[in-house]
Amino acid sequence: MATLDVWFEFASTYSYPAAMRIAPLAQARGVVLRWRPFLLGPIFKAQGWDNSPFNIYPVKGRYMWRDLERLCGALALPFVQPAVFPQNTIAAARVALVALAEGWGEDFIRAVYTAEFGAGRDIGAPGAVAAIVGELGRDASAVMARAQSDAMKAQLRAQTEEAQRLGIFGAPTFVTADGELFWGNDRLEQALDWAAK
Amino acid sequence: MATLDVWFEFASTYSYPAAMRIAPLAQARGVVLRWRPFLLGPIFKAQGWDNSPFNIYPVKGRYMWRDLERLCGALALPFVQPAVFPQNTIAAARVALVALAEGWGEDFIRAVYTAEFGAGRDIGAPGAVAAIVGELGRDASAVMARAQSDAMKAQLRAQTEEAQRLGIFGAPTFVTADGELFWGNDRLEQALDWAAK
Repeated sequence: MATLDVWFEFASTYSYPAAMRIAPLAQARGVVLRWRPFLLGPIFKAQGWDNSPFNIYPVKGRYMWRDLERLCGALALPFVQPAVFPQNTIAAARVALVALAEGWGEDFIRAVYTAEFGAGRDIGAPGAVAAIVGELGRDASAVMARAQSDAMKAQLRAQTEEAQRLGIFGAPTFVTADGELFWGNDRLEQALDWAAK
Repeated sequence: MATLDVWFEFASTYSYPAAMRIAPLAQARGVVLRWRPFLLGPIFKAQGWDNSPFNIYPVKGRYMWRDLERLCGALALPFVQPAVFPQNTIAAARVALVALAEGWGEDFIRAVYTAEFGAGRDIGAPGAVAAIVGELGRDASAVMARAQSDAMKAQLRAQTEEAQRLGIFGAPTFVTADGELFWGNDRLEQALDWAAK
């Protein structure tokens, strides 16, 4: 069975179009996705950045937002540049682990990205993630409690360390079973093709 | 007439596949290319880098070389990672201005990129650019003399300043007549489509 690990971070802008379009492309190639949330913050910190490179290098940041707007336009995806960037994504990442374990992970992931970059909401604001969980028809307080458990905290830390060990430096990053890394929404098709062959 | 400005730097790895594949894609869309050599060094320096970001951030650099190798493989382009990176590209950029003015610019540009990333040669080594000019059947000493003229030095400086004013931060960058920037080999088709519409 062909698999592909999808390493994603909710703060990552280009993970939005990737998350929204990957499912049918994977299905068409018979590739099973393993969604792997992680945090970019510790990885950026290790190379001396305490902020998004798109804020540290504003010329590149301005380009990125325009590029993302054009990409979303071409894909007919809603796009609103959030006022807050990057956002605090720890709660969303922990809930993603719960949701993936419970079988509603992809719906949650798409809902978070759509809230953040399709509607410009701050998913790091208190209650924002719980609201999304509720909108998906889940028991928000039970889910949030499970997401704050030591087990989930430890799993997110472990996945972030695994990402760093794999040589991941940005998101989304796709990793094939034979260890090939493909970075970015622009490499999504190539990664799936590699995984399927 | 649809035109597209192609801002390129001979030290830029992803400019290699872009330069090798753009001509037929532009022709198919009726887009006339304006090749604009510039230097990334002063632009990187302005944002605090005194080296290629692929050397400053080695994890990203390792990924880039593997990614470039895969891209070249898919395009059936020769690829040899040069021992010297980034290379001194001032002489090649000035000769590119001469060659473009004399009508053999595209041949020269492709020859330089092929020498550097297809054969792993150091195009910054003394005599390397003159050798490429000679291989193209041109009078190398006349061309090199013209490239070292004050006029060509000033033109390359002016183009580099223009690139910076335009918000260019990497290469290749494609700029349409209505001012849209598209960065990277991955945006080549999108830039041509925009220019043609």
